[in-house]
Amino acid sequence: MNEAPTGNKRPAFDCAAIIGAGLIGGSIGMALRERGIASHVVAVARSEETLRLAVSRGAADRATLSLSEAAAEADLVILATPVSLIIEHVAAIAEMIADECLVTDVGSVKGPIVAAAEESLPCAGRFVGGHPLAGSERKGIAAARSDLLDGATWVLTPTRVTDEDALNRIEDLVARLGARSLLLSPQEHDVLVGRTSHLPHVVAAALMRVVAEAAKEYAEILDVIGPGLRDTTRIAASDPALWADIALANAAVVLAGMGEMNEALSRFKEALEAGNREELERLFAGAQRAREGL
Amino acid sequence: MNEAPTGNKRPAFDCAAIIGAGLIGGSIGMALRERGIASHVVAVARSEETLRLAVSRGAADRATLSLSEAAAEADLVILATPVSLIIEHVAAIAEMIADECLVTDVGSVKGPIVAAAEESLPCAGRFVGGHPLAGSERKGIAAARSDLLDGATWVLTPTRVTDEDALNRIEDLVARLGARSLLLSPQEHDVLVGRTSHLPHVVAAALMRVVAEAAKEYAEILDVIGPGLRDTTRIAASDPALWADIALANAAVVLAGMGEMNEALSRFKEALEAGNREELERLFAGAQRAREGL
Repeated sequence: MNEAPTGNKRPAFDCAAIIGAGLIGGSIGMALRERGIASHVVAVARSEETLRLAVSRGAADRATLSLSEAAAEADLVILATPVSLIIEHVAAIAEMIADECLVTDVGSVKGPIVAAAEESLPCAGRFVGGHPLAGSERKGIAAARSDLLDGATWVLTPTRVTDEDALNRIEDLVARLGARSLLLSPQEHDVLVGRTSHLPHVVAAALMRVVAEAAKEYAEILDVIGPGLRDTTRIAASDPALWADIALANAAVVLAGMGEMNEALSRFKEALEAGNREELERLFAGAQRAREGL
Repeated sequence: MNEAPTGNKRPAFDCAAIIGAGLIGGSIGMALRERGIASHVVAVARSEETLRLAVSRGAADRATLSLSEAAAEADLVILATPVSLIIEHVAAIAEMIADECLVTDVGSVKGPIVAAAEESLPCAGRFVGGHPLAGSERKGIAAARSDLLDGATWVLTPTRVTDEDALNRIEDLVARLGARSLLLSPQEHDVLVGRTSHLPHVVAAALMRVVAEAAKEYAEILDVIGPGLRDTTRIAASDPALWADIALANAAVVLAGMGEMNEALSRFKEALEAGNREELERLFAGAQRAREGL
Protein backbone atom coordinates (compact mmCIF):
# COMPACT_ATOMS: atom_id res chain seq x y z
CA MET A 1 0.00 0.00 0.00
CA ASN A 2 1.19 3.52 -0.78
CA GLU A 3 1.28 6.10 1.95
CA ALA A 4 -0.94 8.40 -0.08
CA PRO A 5 -4.07 6.55 -1.20
CA THR A 6 -4.78 6.77 -4.91
CA GLY A 7 -7.67 6.23 -7.30
CA ASN A 8 -11.04 5.85 -5.70
CA LYS A 9 -9.33 5.34 -2.34
CA ARG A 10 -8.52 9.06 -2.09
CA PRO A 11 -10.74 10.90 0.34
CA ALA A 12 -13.46 12.67 -1.64
CA PHE A 13 -13.80 15.37 1.00
CA ASP A 14 -11.47 17.12 3.43
CA CYS A 15 -14.03 17.81 6.08
CA ALA A 16 -17.54 16.41 6.19
CA ALA A 17 -19.89 18.04 8.68
CA ILE A 18 -22.81 15.85 9.71
CA ILE A 19 -25.61 17.84 11.28
CA GLY A 20 -27.57 15.43 13.45
CA ALA A 21 -25.81 12.35 14.77
CA GLY A 22 -28.75 9.94 14.90
CA LEU A 23 -29.18 6.53 13.30
CA ILE A 24 -28.58 7.73 9.73
CA GLY A 25 -26.14 10.58 10.42
CA GLY A 26 -24.13 8.40 12.79
CA SER A 27 -24.04 5.49 10.34
CA ILE A 28 -22.86 7.77 7.53
CA GLY A 29 -20.16 9.21 9.80
CA MET A 30 -18.90 5.73 10.66
CA ALA A 31 -18.77 4.71 6.99
CA LEU A 32 -17.07 7.99 5.91
CA ARG A 33 -14.33 7.39 8.45
CA GLU A 34 -13.94 3.62 8.10
CA ARG A 35 -13.77 3.81 4.32
CA GLY A 36 -11.62 6.94 4.15
CA ILE A 37 -14.22 8.87 2.17
CA ALA A 38 -13.60 12.04 4.18
CA SER A 39 -10.30 13.01 5.82
CA HIS A 40 -12.09 14.47 8.77
CA VAL A 41 -15.67 14.13 10.06
CA VAL A 42 -17.23 16.59 12.46
CA ALA A 43 -20.65 15.86 13.94
CA VAL A 44 -23.10 18.40 15.31
CA ALA A 45 -25.63 17.33 17.91
CA ARG A 46 -27.84 18.99 20.47
CA SER A 47 -26.72 17.07 23.55
CA GLU A 48 -23.34 16.47 25.15
CA GLU A 49 -24.30 12.83 25.54
CA THR A 50 -24.82 12.39 21.78
CA LEU A 51 -21.56 14.23 21.07
CA ARG A 52 -19.68 11.86 23.34
CA LEU A 53 -21.32 8.82 21.77
CA ALA A 54 -20.70 10.06 18.22
CA VAL A 55 -16.97 10.20 18.91
CA SER A 56 -16.73 7.08 21.05
CA ARG A 57 -18.67 5.01 18.49
CA GLY A 58 -16.41 6.23 15.69
CA ALA A 59 -19.04 8.29 13.85
CA ALA A 60 -16.92 11.46 13.99
CA ASP A 61 -13.39 12.64 14.64
CA ARG A 62 -14.79 15.56 16.53
CA ALA A 63 -18.24 16.59 17.70
CA THR A 64 -19.59 20.00 18.60
CA LEU A 65 -22.78 21.75 19.67
CA SER A 66 -21.94 24.59 17.27
CA LEU A 67 -23.54 24.43 13.83
CA SER A 68 -21.61 27.47 12.61
CA GLU A 69 -18.25 26.11 13.72
CA ALA A 70 -18.82 22.80 11.91
CA ALA A 71 -20.34 24.33 8.79
CA ALA A 72 -17.57 26.92 8.37
CA GLU A 73 -14.77 24.40 7.92
CA ALA A 74 -16.68 21.82 5.83
CA ASP A 75 -16.48 21.07 2.13
CA LEU A 76 -19.44 18.71 2.56
CA VAL A 77 -22.42 19.32 4.84
CA ILE A 78 -24.84 16.43 5.39
CA LEU A 79 -28.08 17.51 7.05
CA ALA A 80 -29.35 14.51 8.99
CA THR A 81 -31.82 15.83 11.54
CA PRO A 82 -35.61 15.40 11.40
CA VAL A 83 -37.22 17.08 8.38
CA SER A 84 -38.42 20.30 10.02
CA LEU A 85 -34.98 20.90 11.54
CA ILE A 86 -33.30 20.32 8.18
CA ILE A 87 -35.45 23.13 6.81
CA GLU A 88 -34.29 25.38 9.66
CA HIS A 89 -30.65 24.38 9.38
CA VAL A 90 -30.38 24.79 5.64
CA ALA A 91 -31.36 28.43 6.11
CA ALA A 92 -29.04 28.80 9.10
CA ILE A 93 -25.93 27.50 7.31
CA ALA A 94 -26.46 29.68 4.22
CA GLU A 95 -24.22 32.46 5.51
CA MET A 96 -21.74 30.12 7.19
CA ILE A 97 -20.53 27.75 4.48
CA ALA A 98 -17.71 28.23 2.00
CA ASP A 99 -18.61 28.88 -1.64
CA GLU A 100 -17.35 25.52 -2.84
CA CYS A 101 -19.10 23.52 -0.08
CA LEU A 102 -21.49 20.79 -1.20
CA VAL A 103 -24.69 20.37 0.78
CA THR A 104 -26.94 17.34 0.89
CA ASP A 105 -29.52 15.97 3.30
CA VAL A 106 -31.12 12.65 4.22
CA GLY A 107 -34.65 13.84 5.01
CA SER A 108 -37.63 11.55 4.34
CA VAL A 109 -39.57 14.32 2.57
CA LYS A 110 -37.95 16.17 -0.29
CA GLY A 111 -40.28 18.88 -1.67
CA PRO A 112 -40.15 21.35 1.23
CA ILE A 113 -36.45 20.70 1.95
CA VAL A 114 -35.31 21.20 -1.64
CA ALA A 115 -37.45 24.35 -1.92
CA ALA A 116 -35.97 25.75 1.31
CA ALA A 117 -32.42 24.90 0.25
CA GLU A 118 -32.74 26.44 -3.19
CA GLU A 119 -34.27 29.57 -1.70
CA SER A 120 -31.74 29.97 1.14
CA LEU A 121 -28.38 28.83 -0.16
CA PRO A 122 -26.33 31.38 -2.12
CA CYS A 123 -24.98 28.51 -4.25
CA ALA A 124 -28.25 26.65 -4.72
CA GLY A 125 -26.64 24.56 -7.46
CA ARG A 126 -24.35 22.94 -4.91
CA PHE A 127 -27.27 21.46 -2.95
CA VAL A 128 -28.48 17.94 -3.83
CA GLY A 129 -31.43 16.59 -1.88
CA GLY A 130 -31.16 12.97 -0.80
CA HIS A 131 -33.02 10.21 1.01
CA PRO A 132 -31.35 6.89 1.78
CA LEU A 133 -34.04 4.23 2.14
CA ALA A 134 -32.64 2.69 5.26
CA GLY A 135 -33.34 2.88 8.92
CA SER A 136 -35.50 1.00 11.30
CA GLU A 137 -37.85 1.53 14.17
CA ARG A 138 -34.68 1.87 16.28
CA LYS A 139 -33.21 5.31 16.44
CA GLY A 140 -30.23 7.27 17.66
CA ILE A 141 -26.49 6.98 17.48
CA ALA A 142 -26.61 3.86 19.67
CA ALA A 143 -28.21 1.94 16.78
CA ALA A 144 -25.87 3.34 14.10
CA ARG A 145 -23.76 0.90 12.04
CA SER A 146 -21.17 1.59 9.37
CA ASP A 147 -22.89 -0.88 7.01
CA LEU A 148 -26.42 0.48 7.46
CA LEU A 149 -26.44 1.98 3.97
CA ASP A 150 -24.84 -0.99 2.20
CA GLY A 151 -27.10 -2.09 -0.61
CA ALA A 152 -29.71 0.59 0.16
CA THR A 153 -31.46 2.63 -2.49
CA TRP A 154 -30.56 6.28 -2.01
CA VAL A 155 -32.90 8.69 -3.75
CA LEU A 156 -31.29 11.90 -5.04
CA THR A 157 -33.52 14.75 -6.15
CA PRO A 158 -31.56 17.14 -8.37
CA THR A 159 -33.54 19.93 -10.04
CA ARG A 160 -32.79 22.16 -13.04
CA VAL A 161 -30.70 24.45 -10.81
CA THR A 162 -28.43 21.64 -9.55
CA ASP A 163 -24.80 21.77 -10.78
CA GLU A 164 -23.82 18.70 -12.75
CA ASP A 165 -20.53 18.50 -10.87
CA ALA A 166 -22.29 18.65 -7.52
CA LEU A 167 -24.63 15.84 -8.54
CA ASN A 168 -21.72 13.73 -9.80
CA ARG A 169 -19.83 14.11 -6.55
CA ILE A 170 -22.88 13.25 -4.43
CA GLU A 171 -23.58 10.22 -6.64
CA ASP A 172 -19.97 9.16 -6.08
CA LEU A 173 -20.42 9.64 -2.33
CA VAL A 174 -23.53 7.44 -2.37
CA ALA A 175 -21.69 4.75 -4.34
CA ARG A 176 -18.75 4.80 -1.91
CA LEU A 177 -21.21 4.43 0.95
CA GLY A 178 -22.34 1.18 -0.72
CA ALA A 179 -25.75 2.44 -1.85
CA ARG A 180 -27.47 2.79 -5.23
CA SER A 181 -28.48 6.26 -6.44
CA LEU A 182 -31.99 6.66 -7.80
CA LEU A 183 -32.74 10.04 -9.39
CA LEU A 184 -36.26 11.39 -8.92
CA SER A 185 -37.72 14.85 -8.81
CA PRO A 186 -38.50 16.03 -5.25
CA GLN A 187 -42.22 15.81 -6.04
CA GLU A 188 -41.97 12.29 -7.50
CA HIS A 189 -40.05 11.22 -4.42
CA ASP A 190 -42.73 12.54 -2.09
CA VAL A 191 -45.59 11.00 -4.07
CA LEU A 192 -43.91 7.58 -4.11
CA VAL A 193 -42.37 7.45 -0.64
CA GLY A 194 -45.56 8.94 0.78
CA ARG A 195 -47.27 5.72 -0.28
CA THR A 196 -44.51 3.19 0.39
CA SER A 197 -43.37 4.57 3.73
CA HIS A 198 -45.36 7.45 5.23
CA LEU A 199 -48.81 5.93 4.62
CA PRO A 200 -47.77 2.50 6.01
CA HIS A 201 -46.53 4.21 9.17
CA VAL A 202 -49.92 5.83 9.68
CA VAL A 203 -51.74 2.58 8.86
CA ALA A 204 -49.57 0.52 11.22
CA ALA A 205 -50.06 3.08 14.00
CA ALA A 206 -53.83 3.16 13.46
CA LEU A 207 -54.02 -0.65 13.52
CA MET A 208 -51.97 -0.73 16.71
CA ARG A 209 -54.37 1.79 18.27
CA VAL A 210 -57.36 -0.45 17.36
CA VAL A 211 -55.73 -3.42 19.11
CA ALA A 212 -54.72 -1.27 22.10
CA GLU A 213 -58.29 0.00 22.41
CA ALA A 214 -59.66 -3.58 22.30
CA ALA A 215 -57.09 -4.58 24.94
CA LYS A 216 -58.76 -2.20 27.41
CA GLU A 217 -61.88 -4.35 27.23
CA TYR A 218 -60.24 -7.76 26.65
CA ALA A 219 -56.92 -8.22 28.45
CA GLU A 220 -56.54 -11.69 26.86
CA ILE A 221 -56.04 -10.08 23.46
CA LEU A 222 -52.32 -9.84 24.21
CA ASP A 223 -52.20 -13.66 24.43
CA VAL A 224 -53.58 -14.15 20.93
CA ILE A 225 -51.17 -11.87 19.10
CA GLY A 226 -49.18 -13.79 16.51
CA PRO A 227 -46.41 -13.01 14.03
CA GLY A 228 -48.86 -11.48 11.53
CA LEU A 229 -49.82 -8.55 13.74
CA ARG A 230 -46.24 -8.22 14.98
CA ASP A 231 -44.94 -7.73 11.45
CA THR A 232 -47.81 -5.54 10.37
CA THR A 233 -47.29 -3.16 13.29
CA ARG A 234 -43.51 -3.29 13.67
CA ILE A 235 -43.10 0.26 12.33
CA ALA A 236 -45.74 1.51 14.78
CA ALA A 237 -42.88 1.40 17.30
CA SER A 238 -41.13 4.22 15.42
CA ASP A 239 -40.35 7.57 17.01
CA PRO A 240 -43.60 9.59 17.32
CA ALA A 241 -42.00 13.06 17.00
CA LEU A 242 -40.04 12.03 13.92
CA TRP A 243 -43.09 10.56 12.19
CA ALA A 244 -45.42 13.41 13.10
CA ASP A 245 -42.80 15.64 11.51
CA ILE A 246 -42.57 13.55 8.34
CA ALA A 247 -46.32 13.13 7.94
CA LEU A 248 -46.88 16.87 8.33
CA ALA A 249 -44.13 17.72 5.85
CA ASN A 250 -45.80 15.44 3.28
CA ALA A 251 -49.36 15.97 4.48
CA ALA A 252 -51.01 16.37 1.07
CA VAL A 253 -49.62 13.08 -0.23
CA VAL A 254 -50.28 11.22 3.01
CA LEU A 255 -53.88 12.47 3.02
CA ALA A 256 -54.30 11.40 -0.60
CA GLY A 257 -52.88 7.99 0.29
CA MET A 258 -55.28 7.71 3.24
CA GLY A 259 -58.12 8.42 0.84
CA GLU A 260 -56.90 5.59 -1.40
CA MET A 261 -56.58 3.34 1.65
CA ASN A 262 -60.11 4.17 2.65
CA GLU A 263 -61.33 3.27 -0.84
CA ALA A 264 -59.42 -0.02 -0.81
CA LEU A 265 -60.86 -0.91 2.60
CA SER A 266 -64.36 0.00 1.39
CA ARG A 267 -64.14 -2.57 -1.36
CA PHE A 268 -63.34 -5.29 1.19
CA LYS A 269 -66.15 -3.95 3.38
CA GLU A 270 -68.72 -4.10 0.59
CA ALA A 271 -67.69 -7.62 -0.39
CA LEU A 272 -67.90 -8.75 3.25
CA GLU A 273 -71.27 -7.12 3.81
CA ALA A 274 -72.64 -8.70 0.65
CA GLY A 275 -71.12 -12.07 1.53
CA ASN A 276 -69.52 -11.93 -1.92
CA ARG A 277 -66.89 -14.65 -1.68
CA GLU A 278 -65.77 -14.34 -5.29
CA GLU A 279 -65.12 -10.60 -5.05
CA LEU A 280 -63.42 -10.95 -1.65
CA GLU A 281 -61.13 -13.64 -3.01
CA ARG A 282 -60.40 -11.44 -6.04
CA LEU A 283 -59.45 -8.54 -3.74
CA PHE A 284 -57.14 -10.71 -1.62
CA ALA A 285 -55.69 -12.27 -4.79
CA GLY A 286 -54.81 -8.86 -6.23
CA ALA A 287 -52.95 -8.03 -3.04
CA GLN A 288 -51.19 -11.40 -3.04
CA ARG A 289 -50.00 -10.97 -6.64
CA ALA A 290 -48.73 -7.47 -5.86
CA ARG A 291 -46.98 -8.62 -2.69
CA GLU A 292 -45.31 -11.51 -4.44
CA GLY A 293 -44.18 -9.11 -7.15
CA LEU A 294 -42.11 -7.09 -4.66
CA MET B 1 -35.33 -47.44 27.14
CA ASN B 2 -38.11 -49.99 27.69
CA GLU B 3 -39.75 -51.67 24.73
CA ALA B 4 -43.15 -50.49 25.91
CA PRO B 5 -43.09 -46.74 26.51
CA THR B 6 -44.45 -45.66 29.89
CA GLY B 7 -45.71 -42.49 31.64
CA ASN B 8 -46.35 -39.55 29.38
CA LYS B 9 -44.40 -41.27 26.61
CA ARG B 10 -47.28 -43.64 25.99
CA PRO B 11 -49.21 -42.82 22.83
CA ALA B 12 -52.29 -40.85 23.82
CA PHE B 13 -54.20 -42.08 20.77
CA ASP B 14 -54.29 -45.27 18.73
CA CYS B 15 -55.25 -43.68 15.46
CA ALA B 16 -55.32 -39.98 14.74
CA ALA B 17 -57.08 -38.94 11.55
CA ILE B 18 -56.00 -35.57 10.20
CA ILE B 19 -58.48 -34.15 7.74
CA GLY B 20 -56.58 -31.69 5.57
CA ALA B 21 -52.82 -32.15 5.19
CA GLY B 22 -51.79 -28.53 4.75
CA LEU B 23 -49.30 -26.45 6.71
CA ILE B 24 -50.99 -26.96 10.10
CA GLY B 25 -52.42 -30.44 9.57
CA GLY B 26 -49.14 -31.66 8.11
CA SER B 27 -47.10 -30.16 10.93
CA ILE B 28 -49.35 -31.76 13.55
CA GLY B 29 -49.05 -35.11 11.79
CA MET B 30 -45.26 -34.90 11.79
CA ALA B 31 -45.18 -34.04 15.49
CA LEU B 32 -47.70 -36.77 16.42
CA ARG B 33 -45.49 -39.35 14.73
CA GLU B 34 -42.07 -38.04 15.75
CA ARG B 35 -43.08 -37.72 19.39
CA GLY B 36 -45.09 -40.94 19.57
CA ILE B 37 -48.28 -39.14 20.57
CA ALA B 38 -50.40 -41.34 18.28
CA SER B 39 -49.59 -44.93 17.34
CA HIS B 40 -50.90 -44.41 13.85
CA VAL B 41 -51.64 -41.27 11.82
CA VAL B 42 -53.87 -41.26 8.77
CA ALA B 43 -54.17 -38.15 6.65
CA VAL B 44 -57.05 -37.22 4.38
CA ALA B 45 -56.48 -34.89 1.45
CA ARG B 46 -58.20 -34.00 -1.78
CA SER B 47 -55.32 -34.63 -4.18
CA GLU B 48 -53.10 -37.63 -4.84
CA GLU B 49 -50.13 -35.29 -4.88
CA THR B 50 -50.84 -34.09 -1.32
CA LEU B 51 -51.41 -37.67 -0.17
CA ARG B 52 -48.02 -38.67 -1.54
CA LEU B 53 -46.32 -35.69 0.07
CA ALA B 54 -48.03 -36.25 3.41
CA VAL B 55 -46.55 -39.74 3.62
CA SER B 56 -43.16 -38.94 2.11
CA ARG B 57 -42.67 -35.96 4.42
CA GLY B 58 -43.56 -38.07 7.45
CA ALA B 59 -46.84 -36.35 8.27
CA ALA B 60 -48.81 -39.60 8.15
CA ASP B 61 -48.36 -43.37 8.20
CA ARG B 62 -51.05 -43.62 5.59
CA ALA B 63 -53.02 -41.16 3.48
CA THR B 64 -56.36 -41.52 1.79
CA LEU B 65 -58.89 -39.59 -0.25
CA SER B 66 -61.68 -41.17 1.81
CA LEU B 67 -62.97 -39.15 4.75
CA SER B 68 -65.23 -41.99 5.91
CA GLU B 69 -62.46 -44.59 5.86
CA ALA B 70 -60.16 -42.41 7.97
CA ALA B 71 -62.86 -41.24 10.37
CA ALA B 72 -64.21 -44.74 11.03
CA GLU B 73 -60.98 -46.10 12.52
CA ALA B 74 -59.90 -42.98 14.46
CA ASP B 75 -60.04 -42.29 18.19
CA LEU B 76 -58.96 -38.71 17.42
CA VAL B 77 -60.11 -36.64 14.45
CA ILE B 78 -58.33 -33.35 13.78
CA LEU B 79 -60.13 -31.16 11.27
CA ALA B 80 -57.49 -29.05 9.56
CA THR B 81 -59.03 -27.80 6.33
CA PRO B 82 -60.15 -24.21 5.64
CA VAL B 83 -62.98 -23.03 7.91
CA SER B 84 -65.92 -23.58 5.58
CA LEU B 85 -64.78 -27.13 4.81
CA ILE B 86 -64.39 -27.87 8.54
CA ILE B 87 -68.05 -26.94 8.90
CA GLU B 88 -68.95 -29.36 6.08
CA HIS B 89 -66.72 -32.14 7.37
CA VAL B 90 -67.87 -31.99 10.96
CA ALA B 91 -71.39 -32.73 9.71
CA ALA B 92 -70.12 -35.41 7.33
CA ILE B 93 -68.19 -37.36 10.00
CA ALA B 94 -71.08 -37.33 12.50
CA GLU B 95 -72.38 -40.71 11.34
CA MET B 96 -68.94 -42.18 10.69
CA ILE B 97 -67.01 -41.85 13.92
CA ALA B 98 -66.96 -44.19 16.89
CA ASP B 99 -68.75 -43.12 20.08
CA GLU B 100 -65.54 -42.64 22.04
CA CYS B 101 -63.75 -40.67 19.30
CA LEU B 102 -62.51 -37.20 20.24
CA VAL B 103 -62.88 -34.45 17.64
CA THR B 104 -61.02 -31.18 17.48
CA ASP B 105 -60.21 -28.65 14.78
CA VAL B 106 -57.65 -25.97 14.02
CA GLY B 107 -59.89 -23.43 12.27
CA SER B 108 -59.16 -19.71 12.55
CA VAL B 109 -62.79 -18.88 13.36
CA LYS B 110 -64.52 -20.67 16.21
CA GLY B 111 -68.15 -19.54 16.58
CA PRO B 112 -69.61 -21.16 13.44
CA ILE B 113 -67.44 -24.28 13.71
CA VAL B 114 -68.30 -24.96 17.35
CA ALA B 115 -72.00 -24.34 16.62
CA ALA B 116 -71.91 -26.74 13.66
CA ALA B 117 -70.04 -29.40 15.64
CA GLU B 118 -72.36 -29.24 18.62
CA GLU B 119 -75.37 -29.42 16.34
CA SER B 120 -74.12 -32.27 14.17
CA LEU B 121 -72.11 -34.59 16.37
CA PRO B 122 -74.05 -37.19 18.36
CA CYS B 123 -71.47 -36.89 21.16
CA ALA B 124 -71.18 -33.10 21.13
CA GLY B 125 -69.35 -33.24 24.48
CA ARG B 126 -66.41 -34.97 22.80
CA PHE B 127 -65.74 -32.05 20.46
CA VAL B 128 -63.28 -29.35 21.56
CA GLY B 129 -62.74 -26.42 19.20
CA GLY B 130 -59.15 -25.31 18.79
CA HIS B 131 -56.99 -22.77 17.04
CA PRO B 132 -53.19 -22.95 17.20
CA LEU B 133 -51.78 -19.47 16.63
CA ALA B 134 -49.12 -20.55 14.20
CA GLY B 135 -48.67 -20.55 10.49
CA SER B 136 -47.28 -18.16 8.01
CA GLU B 137 -47.99 -16.70 4.61
CA ARG B 138 -46.56 -19.97 3.29
CA LYS B 139 -48.99 -22.80 2.96
CA GLY B 140 -49.32 -26.46 2.18
CA ILE B 141 -47.68 -29.66 3.25
CA ALA B 142 -44.41 -28.56 1.61
CA ALA B 143 -44.00 -25.87 4.32
CA ALA B 144 -44.99 -28.17 7.22
CA ARG B 145 -42.49 -28.70 10.06
CA SER B 146 -42.76 -30.92 13.12
CA ASP B 147 -41.78 -27.99 15.36
CA LEU B 148 -44.23 -25.48 13.90
CA LEU B 149 -46.41 -25.58 17.01
CA ASP B 150 -43.56 -25.48 19.54
CA GLY B 151 -44.12 -22.57 21.87
CA ALA B 152 -47.33 -21.50 20.11
CA THR B 153 -50.45 -20.41 21.92
CA TRP B 154 -53.26 -22.83 21.11
CA VAL B 155 -56.70 -21.50 21.86
CA LEU B 156 -59.25 -24.11 22.98
CA THR B 157 -62.91 -23.17 23.10
CA PRO B 158 -64.85 -25.58 25.32
CA THR B 159 -68.48 -24.74 26.02
CA ARG B 160 -70.86 -25.86 28.74
CA VAL B 161 -71.60 -29.05 26.76
CA THR B 162 -67.92 -30.08 26.48
CA ASP B 163 -66.94 -33.19 28.52
CA GLU B 164 -64.30 -32.46 31.11
CA ASP B 165 -62.41 -35.60 30.13
CA ALA B 166 -62.41 -34.62 26.45
CA LEU B 167 -61.06 -31.18 27.31
CA ASN B 168 -58.35 -32.68 29.54
CA ARG B 169 -57.21 -35.03 26.80
CA ILE B 170 -57.08 -32.28 24.19
CA GLU B 171 -55.18 -30.03 26.61
CA ASP B 172 -52.72 -32.87 27.09
CA LEU B 173 -52.43 -33.27 23.30
CA VAL B 174 -51.68 -29.55 22.95
CA ALA B 175 -49.03 -29.75 25.68
CA ARG B 176 -47.37 -32.77 24.04
CA LEU B 177 -47.29 -30.84 20.77
CA GLY B 178 -45.24 -28.20 22.61
CA ALA B 179 -47.94 -25.52 22.68
CA ARG B 180 -49.71 -23.63 25.47
CA SER B 181 -53.48 -24.01 25.85
CA LEU B 182 -55.51 -20.83 26.28
CA LEU B 183 -59.19 -21.36 27.10
CA LEU B 184 -61.61 -18.86 25.61
CA SER B 185 -65.26 -19.02 24.63
CA PRO B 186 -65.77 -19.37 20.85
CA GLN B 187 -67.18 -15.83 20.79
CA GLU B 188 -64.29 -14.35 22.77
CA HIS B 189 -61.86 -16.08 20.43
CA ASP B 190 -63.52 -14.60 17.37
CA VAL B 191 -63.71 -11.09 18.83
CA LEU B 192 -60.03 -11.14 19.79
CA VAL B 193 -58.50 -12.98 16.85
CA GLY B 194 -60.72 -10.98 14.49
CA ARG B 195 -58.76 -7.92 15.60
CA THR B 196 -55.27 -9.41 15.99
CA SER B 197 -55.29 -11.54 12.84
CA HIS B 198 -58.28 -11.21 10.50
CA LEU B 199 -58.39 -7.40 10.50
CA PRO B 200 -54.60 -7.08 9.93
CA HIS B 201 -54.90 -9.41 6.92
CA VAL B 202 -57.54 -7.15 5.39
CA VAL B 203 -55.53 -4.01 6.25
CA ALA B 204 -52.30 -5.42 4.80
CA ALA B 205 -54.11 -6.50 1.64
CA ALA B 206 -55.78 -3.08 1.25
CA LEU B 207 -52.44 -1.30 1.73
CA MET B 208 -50.82 -3.57 -0.83
CA ARG B 209 -53.61 -2.75 -3.28
CA VAL B 210 -52.99 1.00 -2.77
CA VAL B 211 -49.31 0.56 -3.62
CA ALA B 212 -50.13 -1.71 -6.58
CA GLU B 213 -52.56 0.89 -7.89
CA ALA B 214 -49.92 3.64 -7.57
CA ALA B 215 -47.41 1.38 -9.36
CA LYS B 216 -49.60 1.48 -12.48
CA GLU B 217 -48.91 5.22 -12.71
CA TYR B 218 -45.38 5.28 -11.26
CA ALA B 219 -43.27 2.25 -12.12
CA GLU B 220 -40.40 3.64 -9.99
CA ILE B 221 -42.45 3.01 -6.85
CA LEU B 222 -41.05 -0.53 -6.72
CA ASP B 223 -37.56 0.95 -6.32
CA VAL B 224 -38.48 2.93 -3.22
CA ILE B 225 -40.01 0.09 -1.23
CA GLY B 226 -38.15 -0.44 2.01
CA PRO B 227 -38.36 -2.90 4.91
CA GLY B 228 -41.26 -0.97 6.51
CA LEU B 229 -43.72 -1.71 3.72
CA ARG B 230 -42.34 -5.23 3.33
CA ASP B 231 -43.10 -6.05 6.96
CA THR B 232 -46.42 -4.27 6.98
CA THR B 233 -47.65 -6.20 3.93
CA ARG B 234 -45.98 -9.58 4.48
CA ILE B 235 -49.31 -11.24 5.32
CA ALA B 236 -50.85 -9.81 2.15
CA ALA B 237 -49.06 -12.70 0.42
CA SER B 238 -51.36 -15.17 2.21
CA ASP B 239 -53.68 -17.52 0.35
CA PRO B 240 -56.65 -15.54 -1.03
CA ALA B 241 -59.20 -18.37 -0.86
CA LEU B 242 -58.25 -19.22 2.71
CA TRP B 243 -58.54 -15.62 3.87
CA ALA B 244 -61.75 -14.88 2.02
CA ASP B 245 -63.11 -17.93 3.82
CA ILE B 246 -61.90 -16.77 7.24
CA ALA B 247 -63.07 -13.17 6.79
CA LEU B 248 -66.53 -14.33 5.72
CA ALA B 249 -66.81 -16.77 8.62
CA ASN B 250 -66.04 -13.92 11.06
CA ALA B 251 -67.61 -11.15 8.98
CA ALA B 252 -69.40 -9.32 11.80
CA VAL B 253 -66.24 -8.97 13.87
CA VAL B 254 -64.05 -8.08 10.89
CA LEU B 255 -66.56 -5.41 9.83
CA ALA B 256 -66.62 -4.02 13.38
CA GLY B 257 -62.81 -3.98 13.37
CA MET B 258 -62.80 -2.18 10.03
CA GLY B 259 -65.10 0.44 11.55
CA GLU B 260 -62.63 0.88 14.42
CA MET B 261 -59.77 1.08 11.91
CA ASN B 262 -61.64 3.74 10.00
CA GLU B 263 -62.13 5.75 13.21
CA ALA B 264 -58.45 5.43 14.11
CA LEU B 265 -57.41 6.57 10.62
CA SER B 266 -59.86 9.49 10.83
CA ARG B 267 -58.12 10.82 13.91
CA PHE B 268 -54.79 10.86 12.05
CA LYS B 269 -56.55 12.47 9.09
CA GLU B 270 -58.06 15.24 11.19
CA ALA B 271 -54.75 15.98 12.90
CA LEU B 272 -52.96 16.09 9.53
CA GLU B 273 -55.60 18.31 7.95
CA ALA B 274 -55.46 20.70 10.89
CA GLY B 275 -51.65 20.63 10.92
CA ASN B 276 -51.99 19.69 14.60
CA ARG B 277 -48.48 18.45 15.39
CA GLU B 278 -49.17 17.87 19.08
CA GLU B 279 -52.20 15.67 18.42
CA LEU B 280 -50.43 13.78 15.63
CA GLU B 281 -47.47 13.09 17.88
CA ARG B 282 -49.86 11.96 20.63
CA LEU B 283 -51.55 9.52 18.21
CA PHE B 284 -48.22 8.06 17.05
CA ALA B 285 -47.02 7.92 20.67
CA GLY B 286 -50.07 5.91 21.76
CA ALA B 287 -49.34 3.40 19.00
CA GLN B 288 -45.66 3.28 19.93
CA ARG B 289 -46.43 2.57 23.60
CA ALA B 290 -48.88 -0.18 22.62
CA ARG B 291 -46.42 -1.74 20.17
CA GLU B 292 -43.59 -1.72 22.67
CA GLY B 293 -45.95 -3.33 25.18
CA LEU B 294 -46.35 -6.43 22.98
